[in-house]
Amino acid sequence: MVNLFKKRPRRPQPSRVSRGAESPNISRVGLAQLTPELDRYLAHGAYLQLSLFETLSKAIISAPTTKTKTAVSRVANIALDRHHALSAELERQQLDPAEAMQPFAAAVDAFQQRVHGADWDELLMSAYVVSGILDDCFVQLAGGLPGDYPERMAALLGGDAVTDALAAVLSDEIAANPKLASRLALWGRRLVGDTLIVARSAADIPQDTATDDERLEPAFTELVADHTRRMDRLGLTA
Amino acid sequence: MVNLFKKRPRRPQPSRVSRGAESPNISRVGLAQLTPELDRYLAHGAYLQLSLFETLSKAIISAPTTKTKTAVSRVANIALDRHHALSAELERQQLDPAEAMQPFAAAVDAFQQRVHGADWDELLMSAYVVSGILDDCFVQLAGGLPGDYPERMAALLGGDAVTDALAAVLSDEIAANPKLASRLALWGRRLVGDTLIVARSAADIPQDTATDDERLEPAFTELVADHTRRMDRLGLTA
Repeated sequence: MVNLFKKRPRRPQPSRVSRGAESPNISRVGLAQLTPELDRYLAHGAYLQLSLFETLSKAIISAPTTKTKTAVSRVANIALDRHHALSAELERQQLDPAEAMQPFAAAVDAFQQRVHGADWDELLMSAYVVSGILDDCFVQLAGGLPGDYPERMAALLGGDAVTDALAAVLSDEIAANPKLASRLALWGRRLVGDTLIVARSAADIPQDTATDDERLEPAFTELVADHTRRMDRLGLTA
Repeated sequence: MVNLFKKRPRRPQPSRVSRGAESPNISRVGLAQLTPELDRYLAHGAYLQLSLFETLSKAIISAPTTKTKTAVSRVANIALDRHHALSAELERQQLDPAEAMQPFAAAVDAFQQRVHGADWDELLMSAYVVSGILDDCFVQLAGGLPGDYPERMAALLGGDAVTDALAAVLSDEIAANPKLASRLALWGRRLVGDTLIVARSAADIPQDTATDDERLEPAFTELVADHTRRMDRLGLTA
Protein backbone atom coordinates (compact mmCIF):
# COMPACT_ATOMS: atom_id res chain seq x y z
CA MET A 1 0.00 0.00 0.00
CA VAL A 2 1.16 3.50 -0.82
CA ASN A 3 1.85 5.66 2.20
CA LEU A 4 0.18 8.90 1.23
CA PHE A 5 1.52 10.95 4.03
CA LYS A 6 5.19 10.23 4.33
CA LYS A 7 6.40 12.94 2.00
CA ARG A 8 4.08 15.73 2.94
CA PRO A 9 5.55 18.96 4.35
CA ARG A 10 5.90 18.94 8.14
CA ARG A 11 3.30 21.43 9.24
CA PRO A 12 0.39 21.86 6.80
CA GLN A 13 -2.44 19.35 6.85
CA PRO A 14 -3.11 17.63 3.53
CA SER A 15 -6.56 18.38 2.23
CA ARG A 16 -9.25 15.96 3.33
CA VAL A 17 -10.68 15.74 -0.16
CA SER A 18 -7.54 14.71 -1.98
CA ARG A 19 -6.71 12.21 0.74
CA GLY A 20 -10.02 10.46 0.30
CA ALA A 21 -9.80 10.64 -3.48
CA GLU A 22 -6.37 9.08 -3.61
CA SER A 23 -7.31 6.24 -1.34
CA PRO A 24 -10.65 4.72 -2.28
CA ASN A 25 -9.82 1.53 -0.44
CA ILE A 26 -10.08 3.30 2.88
CA SER A 27 -11.17 0.31 4.85
CA ARG A 28 -7.67 -1.17 4.76
CA VAL A 29 -5.75 1.84 6.04
CA GLY A 30 -3.92 1.05 9.26
CA LEU A 31 -2.54 3.30 11.97
CA ALA A 32 0.90 3.43 10.30
CA GLN A 33 -0.80 5.46 7.54
CA LEU A 34 -2.11 7.93 10.09
CA THR A 35 1.20 8.67 11.80
CA PRO A 36 1.40 12.23 13.09
CA GLU A 37 4.46 14.48 12.79
CA LEU A 38 7.45 13.09 14.70
CA ASP A 39 7.43 15.94 17.23
CA ARG A 40 3.76 15.49 17.94
CA TYR A 41 4.12 11.73 18.23
CA LEU A 42 6.98 12.04 20.72
CA ALA A 43 5.39 14.78 22.80
CA HIS A 44 1.96 13.15 22.99
CA GLY A 45 3.55 9.79 23.78
CA ALA A 46 5.80 11.30 26.45
CA TYR A 47 2.89 12.98 28.19
CA LEU A 48 0.74 9.87 28.01
CA GLN A 49 3.50 7.81 29.64
CA LEU A 50 3.80 10.45 32.35
CA SER A 51 0.05 10.26 32.84
CA LEU A 52 0.15 6.46 33.03
CA PHE A 53 2.93 6.82 35.54
CA GLU A 54 0.74 9.15 37.61
CA THR A 55 -2.10 6.63 37.56
CA LEU A 56 0.34 3.94 38.69
CA SER A 57 1.72 6.25 41.39
CA LYS A 58 -1.76 6.68 42.81
CA ALA A 59 -2.07 2.89 42.78
CA ILE A 60 1.26 2.56 44.59
CA ILE A 61 0.30 5.11 47.23
CA SER A 62 -3.05 3.45 47.89
CA ALA A 63 -1.87 -0.15 47.43
CA PRO A 64 -3.50 -2.50 49.95
CA THR A 65 -0.28 -4.41 50.72
CA THR A 66 3.47 -3.93 50.54
CA LYS A 67 3.54 -6.77 48.02
CA THR A 68 1.18 -5.05 45.57
CA LYS A 69 2.95 -1.74 46.22
CA THR A 70 6.22 -3.35 45.13
CA ALA A 71 4.69 -5.04 42.09
CA VAL A 72 3.05 -1.86 40.83
CA SER A 73 6.21 0.16 41.47
CA ARG A 74 8.03 -1.97 38.90
CA VAL A 75 5.42 -1.06 36.31
CA ALA A 76 5.61 2.61 37.29
CA ASN A 77 9.33 2.46 36.71
CA ILE A 78 8.78 1.24 33.15
CA ALA A 79 6.29 4.02 32.42
CA LEU A 80 8.66 6.62 33.83
CA ASP A 81 11.60 5.22 31.86
CA ARG A 82 9.49 5.39 28.70
CA HIS A 83 8.50 8.96 29.49
CA HIS A 84 12.14 9.93 29.92
CA ALA A 85 13.21 8.09 26.77
CA LEU A 86 10.57 9.97 24.75
CA SER A 87 11.60 13.25 26.42
CA ALA A 88 15.21 12.54 25.44
CA GLU A 89 14.05 12.05 21.84
CA LEU A 90 12.35 15.45 21.98
CA GLU A 91 15.62 16.96 23.18
CA ARG A 92 17.40 15.28 20.27
CA GLN A 93 14.92 17.17 18.06
CA GLN A 94 16.09 20.41 19.77
CA LEU A 95 12.79 20.70 21.59
CA ASP A 96 12.15 21.47 25.23
CA PRO A 97 10.12 18.45 26.44
CA ALA A 98 7.95 20.45 28.84
CA GLU A 99 7.03 22.96 26.14
CA ALA A 100 6.45 20.26 23.54
CA MET A 101 4.16 18.29 25.86
CA GLN A 102 2.17 21.31 27.00
CA PRO A 103 -0.41 21.25 24.16
CA PHE A 104 -1.39 17.70 25.19
CA ALA A 105 -1.53 18.28 28.93
CA ALA A 106 -5.13 19.46 29.35
CA ALA A 107 -6.76 16.67 27.33
CA VAL A 108 -4.61 13.93 28.84
CA ASP A 109 -5.11 15.23 32.38
CA ALA A 110 -8.87 15.29 31.85
CA PHE A 111 -8.70 11.74 30.50
CA GLN A 112 -6.68 10.62 33.52
CA GLN A 113 -9.34 12.08 35.82
CA ARG A 114 -12.12 10.37 33.89
CA VAL A 115 -10.53 6.92 34.12
CA HIS A 116 -9.59 7.22 37.77
CA GLY A 117 -12.17 4.72 38.96
CA ALA A 118 -13.88 4.30 42.30
CA ASP A 119 -11.24 2.31 44.15
CA TRP A 120 -7.83 0.68 43.96
CA ASP A 121 -8.93 -2.21 41.76
CA GLU A 122 -10.59 0.07 39.22
CA LEU A 123 -7.55 2.34 39.23
CA LEU A 124 -5.31 -0.62 38.47
CA MET A 125 -7.73 -1.85 35.83
CA SER A 126 -7.50 1.58 34.20
CA ALA A 127 -3.72 1.32 34.02
CA TYR A 128 -4.07 -2.14 32.49
CA VAL A 129 -6.64 -1.21 29.85
CA VAL A 130 -5.22 2.21 28.99
CA SER A 131 -1.59 1.14 28.73
CA GLY A 132 -2.63 -1.94 26.76
CA ILE A 133 -4.53 -0.01 24.11
CA LEU A 134 -2.35 3.10 23.92
CA ASP A 135 1.02 1.34 23.87
CA ASP A 136 -0.33 -0.84 21.06
CA CYS A 137 -1.59 2.24 19.28
CA PHE A 138 1.72 4.09 19.57
CA VAL A 139 3.73 1.10 18.38
CA GLN A 140 1.49 0.97 15.29
CA LEU A 141 1.53 4.73 14.73
CA ALA A 142 5.34 4.58 14.83
CA GLY A 143 5.20 2.55 11.60
CA GLY A 144 5.05 5.78 9.60
CA LEU A 145 7.82 7.62 11.45
CA PRO A 146 11.10 8.40 9.64
CA GLY A 147 14.45 6.61 9.98
CA ASP A 148 14.80 3.87 12.56
CA TYR A 149 12.04 5.31 14.73
CA PRO A 150 9.56 2.52 13.91
CA GLU A 151 11.91 -0.14 15.31
CA ARG A 152 13.11 1.95 18.23
CA MET A 153 9.60 2.92 19.29
CA ALA A 154 8.47 -0.71 19.02
CA ALA A 155 11.39 -1.72 21.24
CA LEU A 156 10.59 1.03 23.74
CA LEU A 157 6.80 0.74 23.89
CA GLY A 158 6.18 -2.84 22.79
CA GLY A 159 6.68 -6.01 24.77
CA ASP A 160 4.56 -7.51 27.50
CA ALA A 161 6.33 -6.30 30.66
CA VAL A 162 3.64 -3.80 31.68
CA THR A 163 0.71 -6.01 30.71
CA ASP A 164 2.17 -9.11 32.37
CA ALA A 165 2.92 -7.37 35.64
CA LEU A 166 -0.49 -5.68 35.87
CA ALA A 167 -2.31 -8.86 34.82
CA ALA A 168 -0.57 -10.73 37.64
CA VAL A 169 -1.69 -8.23 40.28
CA LEU A 170 -5.24 -8.02 38.88
CA SER A 171 -5.55 -11.81 38.68
CA ASP A 172 -4.56 -12.09 42.35
CA GLU A 173 -7.11 -9.45 43.26
CA ILE A 174 -9.89 -11.22 41.36
CA ALA A 175 -8.90 -14.61 42.80
CA ALA A 176 -9.05 -13.17 46.32
CA ASN A 177 -12.39 -11.52 45.67
CA PRO A 178 -14.31 -13.21 42.82
CA LYS A 179 -17.14 -10.68 43.09
CA LEU A 180 -14.72 -8.12 41.64
CA ALA A 181 -14.86 -9.81 38.22
CA SER A 182 -18.18 -8.43 37.03
CA ARG A 183 -17.49 -4.93 38.32
CA LEU A 184 -14.06 -4.84 36.66
CA ALA A 185 -15.47 -6.21 33.40
CA LEU A 186 -18.03 -3.40 33.41
CA TRP A 187 -15.40 -0.81 34.25
CA GLY A 188 -13.11 -2.17 31.53
CA ARG A 189 -15.87 -1.76 28.99
CA ARG A 190 -16.35 1.86 29.98
CA LEU A 191 -12.63 2.55 29.69
CA VAL A 192 -12.37 1.35 26.10
CA GLY A 193 -14.45 4.18 24.67
CA ASP A 194 -12.53 6.94 26.43
CA THR A 195 -9.21 5.33 25.57
CA LEU A 196 -10.05 5.00 21.88
CA ILE A 197 -10.82 8.72 21.79
CA VAL A 198 -7.27 9.34 23.02
CA ALA A 199 -5.92 6.89 20.43
CA ARG A 200 -7.86 8.80 17.77
CA SER A 201 -6.42 12.13 18.95
CA ALA A 202 -2.92 10.67 18.60
CA ALA A 203 -3.48 9.82 14.93
CA ASP A 204 -3.07 12.41 12.22
CA ILE A 205 -6.71 13.07 11.47
CA PRO A 206 -8.86 16.07 12.19
CA GLN A 207 -11.40 15.59 14.96
CA ASP A 208 -15.06 14.82 14.22
CA THR A 209 -14.71 13.89 10.58
CA ALA A 210 -16.92 11.00 9.67
CA THR A 211 -14.83 10.02 6.62
CA ASP A 212 -11.70 9.73 8.68
CA ASP A 213 -13.42 7.67 11.31
CA GLU A 214 -14.17 5.18 8.56
CA ARG A 215 -10.46 5.13 7.85
CA LEU A 216 -9.72 4.49 11.49
CA GLU A 217 -12.22 1.71 11.94
CA PRO A 218 -10.14 -1.27 10.82
CA ALA A 219 -7.19 -0.13 12.90
CA PHE A 220 -9.44 0.32 15.89
CA THR A 221 -11.01 -3.08 15.37
CA GLU A 222 -7.52 -4.52 15.75
CA LEU A 223 -6.79 -2.48 18.90
CA VAL A 224 -10.06 -3.68 20.40
CA ALA A 225 -9.36 -7.31 19.47
CA ASP A 226 -6.07 -7.12 21.37
CA HIS A 227 -7.86 -5.48 24.26
CA THR A 228 -10.37 -8.35 24.28
CA ARG A 229 -7.49 -10.83 24.53
CA ARG A 230 -6.09 -8.94 27.51
CA MET A 231 -9.50 -9.06 29.23
CA ASP A 232 -9.85 -12.77 28.44
CA ARG A 233 -6.56 -13.32 30.16
CA LEU A 234 -8.12 -12.06 33.41
CA GLY A 235 -11.20 -14.19 32.81
CA LEU A 236 -13.25 -11.08 32.06
CA THR A 237 -15.65 -10.38 29.23
CA ALA A 238 -14.61 -7.40 27.13
CA MET B 1 38.33 4.23 66.56
CA VAL B 2 37.46 0.62 67.30
CA ASN B 3 34.24 -0.53 65.71
CA LEU B 4 32.59 -2.38 68.57
CA PHE B 5 29.78 -3.86 66.59
CA LYS B 6 31.25 -5.24 63.41
CA LYS B 7 31.89 -8.74 64.74
CA ARG B 8 28.80 -9.20 66.82
CA PRO B 9 26.47 -12.07 65.96
CA ARG B 10 23.77 -11.11 63.48
CA ARG B 11 20.62 -11.26 65.58
CA PRO B 12 21.21 -10.70 69.31
CA GLN B 13 21.61 -7.14 70.58
CA PRO B 14 24.82 -6.46 72.52
CA SER B 15 24.08 -5.44 76.07
CA ARG B 16 23.72 -1.71 76.61
CA VAL B 17 25.95 -1.81 79.68
CA SER B 18 28.97 -3.40 78.07
CA ARG B 19 28.61 -1.17 75.03
CA GLY B 20 28.85 1.93 77.18
CA ALA B 21 31.63 0.47 79.31
CA GLU B 22 33.82 -0.38 76.33
CA SER B 23 33.42 3.06 74.79
CA PRO B 24 33.79 5.79 77.39
CA ASN B 25 34.40 8.37 74.67
CA ILE B 26 30.83 8.09 73.46
CA SER B 27 30.66 11.60 72.10
CA ARG B 28 32.79 10.59 69.11
CA VAL B 29 30.74 7.60 67.98
CA GLY B 30 29.44 8.16 64.44
CA LEU B 31 26.59 6.55 62.55
CA ALA B 32 28.92 3.91 61.06
CA GLN B 33 29.19 2.52 64.60
CA LEU B 34 25.42 2.26 64.84
CA THR B 35 24.86 0.31 61.63
CA PRO B 36 21.90 -2.06 61.85
CA GLU B 37 21.88 -5.62 60.51
CA LEU B 38 22.28 -5.72 56.74
CA ASP B 39 18.75 -7.03 56.15
CA ARG B 40 17.22 -4.32 58.28
CA TYR B 41 19.32 -1.64 56.63
CA LEU B 42 18.29 -2.74 53.14
CA ALA B 43 14.61 -3.20 53.94
CA HIS B 44 14.24 0.08 55.81
CA GLY B 45 16.17 1.91 53.11
CA ALA B 46 14.10 0.32 50.34
CA TYR B 47 10.83 1.30 51.98
CA LEU B 48 12.05 4.84 52.66
CA GLN B 49 12.99 5.26 49.01
CA LEU B 50 9.56 3.99 48.02
CA SER B 51 8.01 6.48 50.42
CA LEU B 52 10.14 9.32 49.02
CA PHE B 53 9.03 8.22 45.57
CA GLU B 54 5.39 8.43 46.71
CA THR B 55 5.93 11.96 48.01
CA LEU B 56 7.51 12.89 44.67
CA SER B 57 4.64 11.23 42.79
CA LYS B 58 2.17 13.40 44.63
CA ALA B 59 4.29 16.39 43.67
CA ILE B 60 4.29 15.26 40.03
CA ILE B 61 0.53 14.78 39.99
CA SER B 62 -0.13 18.19 41.52
CA ALA B 63 2.71 20.04 39.76
CA PRO B 64 1.68 23.56 38.71
CA THR B 65 3.34 23.35 35.28
CA THR B 66 4.48 20.74 32.79
CA LYS B 67 8.03 22.00 33.33
CA THR B 68 8.00 21.31 37.07
CA LYS B 69 6.20 18.02 36.43
CA THR B 70 9.06 16.96 34.18
CA ALA B 71 11.76 18.15 36.58
CA VAL B 72 10.25 16.33 39.55
CA SER B 73 9.68 13.18 37.50
CA ARG B 74 13.45 12.90 37.01
CA VAL B 75 13.93 12.89 40.77
CA ALA B 76 11.13 10.36 41.22
CA ASN B 77 12.93 8.11 38.78
CA ILE B 78 16.07 8.21 40.92
CA ALA B 79 14.12 7.36 44.08
CA LEU B 80 12.38 4.49 42.32
CA ASP B 81 15.66 3.18 40.90
CA ARG B 82 17.16 3.27 44.39
CA HIS B 83 14.16 1.45 45.78
CA HIS B 84 14.52 -1.26 43.15
CA ALA B 85 18.29 -1.52 43.67
CA LEU B 86 17.78 -2.03 47.42
CA SER B 87 14.98 -4.54 46.72
CA ALA B 88 17.35 -6.42 44.42
CA GLU B 89 19.89 -6.54 47.28
CA LEU B 90 17.22 -8.03 49.52
CA GLU B 91 16.58 -10.68 46.88
CA ARG B 92 20.32 -11.41 46.78
CA GLN B 93 19.99 -12.07 50.51
CA GLN B 94 17.25 -14.61 49.67
CA LEU B 95 14.61 -12.33 51.10
CA ASP B 96 11.25 -11.37 49.66
CA PRO B 97 11.42 -7.55 49.44
CA ALA B 98 7.75 -7.01 50.25
CA GLU B 99 7.96 -9.20 53.36
CA ALA B 100 11.24 -7.69 54.47
CA MET B 101 9.89 -4.13 54.13
CA GLN B 102 6.60 -4.88 55.89
CA PRO B 103 7.86 -4.21 59.46
CA PHE B 104 8.83 -0.67 58.43
CA ALA B 105 5.68 0.18 56.49
CA ALA B 106 3.45 1.53 59.27
CA ALA B 107 6.02 3.92 60.79
CA VAL B 108 7.24 5.19 57.42
CA ASP B 109 3.69 5.63 56.10
CA ALA B 110 2.77 7.63 59.20
CA PHE B 111 5.90 9.75 58.73
CA GLN B 112 5.01 10.36 55.09
CA GLN B 113 1.56 11.57 56.14
CA ARG B 114 3.04 13.86 58.79
CA VAL B 115 5.42 15.56 56.37
CA HIS B 116 2.86 15.97 53.60
CA GLY B 117 2.57 19.73 53.98
CA ALA B 118 -0.24 22.10 53.10
CA ASP B 119 0.48 22.62 49.42
CA TRP B 120 2.74 21.79 46.50
CA ASP B 121 5.68 23.88 47.69
CA GLU B 122 5.63 22.35 51.15
CA LEU B 123 5.34 18.88 49.65
CA LEU B 124 8.40 19.53 47.50
CA MET B 125 10.24 21.02 50.47
CA SER B 126 9.51 17.81 52.37
CA ALA B 127 11.07 15.73 49.62
CA TYR B 128 14.11 18.04 49.68
CA VAL B 129 14.62 17.99 53.44
CA VAL B 130 13.75 14.35 54.02
CA SER B 131 15.81 12.94 51.15
CA GLY B 132 18.70 15.21 52.11
CA ILE B 133 18.87 14.04 55.70
CA LEU B 134 17.95 10.39 55.22
CA ASP B 135 20.16 9.72 52.20
CA ASP B 136 23.06 11.24 54.18
CA CYS B 137 22.12 9.11 57.15
CA PHE B 138 21.97 5.88 55.13
CA VAL B 139 25.30 6.56 53.41
CA GLN B 140 26.88 6.99 56.85
CA LEU B 141 25.11 3.99 58.39
CA ALA B 142 26.42 1.90 55.47
CA GLY B 143 29.93 2.47 56.84
CA GLY B 144 29.48 -0.48 59.19
CA LEU B 145 27.98 -2.89 56.64
CA PRO B 146 29.98 -5.97 55.55
CA GLY B 147 31.93 -6.49 52.33
CA ASP B 148 31.75 -3.81 49.66
CA TYR B 149 28.35 -2.59 50.85
CA PRO B 150 29.74 0.69 52.25
CA GLU B 151 31.08 1.74 48.84
CA ARG B 152 28.12 0.40 46.90
CA MET B 153 25.56 2.07 49.14
CA ALA B 154 27.49 5.35 48.97
CA ALA B 155 27.45 5.10 45.17
CA LEU B 156 23.72 4.32 45.15
CA LEU B 157 22.48 6.80 47.75
CA GLY B 158 25.19 9.47 47.71
CA GLY B 159 25.75 12.19 45.14
CA ASP B 160 23.87 15.41 44.60
CA ALA B 161 21.45 14.49 41.80
CA VAL B 162 18.31 14.51 43.97
CA THR B 163 19.32 17.56 46.00
CA ASP B 164 20.41 19.56 42.95
CA ALA B 165 17.23 18.86 41.00
CA LEU B 166 14.90 19.67 43.90
CA ALA B 167 16.92 22.77 44.85
CA ALA B 168 16.53 24.04 41.28
CA VAL B 169 12.75 23.68 41.34
CA LEU B 170 12.43 25.15 44.84
CA SER B 171 14.69 28.10 43.98
CA ASP B 172 12.49 28.89 40.97
CA GLU B 173 9.40 28.71 43.15
CA ILE B 174 10.88 31.05 45.76
CA ALA B 175 12.15 33.46 43.08
CA ALA B 176 8.66 33.59 41.55
CA ASN B 177 7.03 34.11 44.91
CA PRO B 178 9.43 35.57 47.50
CA LYS B 179 6.79 35.41 50.22
CA LEU B 180 7.21 31.63 50.13
CA ALA B 181 10.65 31.87 51.74
CA SER B 182 9.59 32.41 55.33
CA ARG B 183 6.85 29.80 55.18
CA LEU B 184 9.19 27.21 53.67
CA ALA B 185 11.89 28.02 56.23
CA LEU B 186 9.38 27.42 59.01
CA TRP B 187 8.16 24.21 57.40
CA GLY B 188 11.74 23.04 56.89
CA ARG B 189 12.42 23.51 60.58
CA ARG B 190 9.42 21.41 61.50
CA LEU B 191 10.49 18.64 59.15
CA VAL B 192 13.94 18.21 60.73
CA GLY B 193 12.62 16.89 64.02
CA ASP B 194 10.37 14.27 62.45
CA THR B 195 13.07 13.26 59.99
CA LEU B 196 15.72 12.81 62.71
CA ILE B 197 13.34 10.46 64.51
CA VAL B 198 13.28 8.31 61.37
CA ALA B 199 17.08 8.52 61.15
CA ARG B 200 17.27 7.39 64.77
CA SER B 201 14.96 4.46 64.09
CA ALA B 202 17.26 3.38 61.26
CA ALA B 203 20.27 3.17 63.57
CA ASP B 204 20.92 0.13 65.72
CA ILE B 205 19.87 1.51 69.07
CA PRO B 206 16.88 0.74 71.22
CA GLN B 207 14.24 3.45 71.28
CA ASP B 208 13.96 5.95 74.14
CA THR B 209 17.30 5.29 75.77
CA ALA B 210 18.90 8.46 77.01
CA THR B 211 22.44 7.01 76.97
CA ASP B 212 22.10 6.06 73.34
CA ASP B 213 20.78 9.45 72.40
CA GLU B 214 24.01 10.88 73.78
CA ARG B 215 25.85 8.52 71.48
CA LEU B 216 23.79 9.72 68.54
CA GLU B 217 24.21 13.39 69.21
CA PRO B 218 27.50 14.04 67.38
CA ALA B 219 26.31 12.11 64.33
CA PHE B 220 23.06 14.06 64.34
CA THR B 221 24.90 17.35 64.71
CA GLU B 222 26.64 16.50 61.47
CA LEU B 223 23.38 15.55 59.71
CA VAL B 224 21.84 18.84 60.82
CA ALA B 225 24.89 20.83 59.69
CA ASP B 226 24.51 19.38 56.19
CA HIS B 227 20.80 20.12 56.31
CA THR B 228 21.61 23.73 57.23
CA ARG B 229 23.87 24.00 54.18
CA ARG B 230 21.04 22.71 51.99
CA MET B 231 18.66 25.32 53.41
CA ASP B 232 21.31 28.07 52.95
CA ARG B 233 21.49 27.10 49.35
CA LEU B 234 17.84 28.09 48.94
CA GLY B 235 18.47 31.31 50.88
CA LEU B 236 16.48 29.95 53.82
CA THR B 237 17.35 29.93 57.50
CA ALA B 238 17.49 26.43 58.96
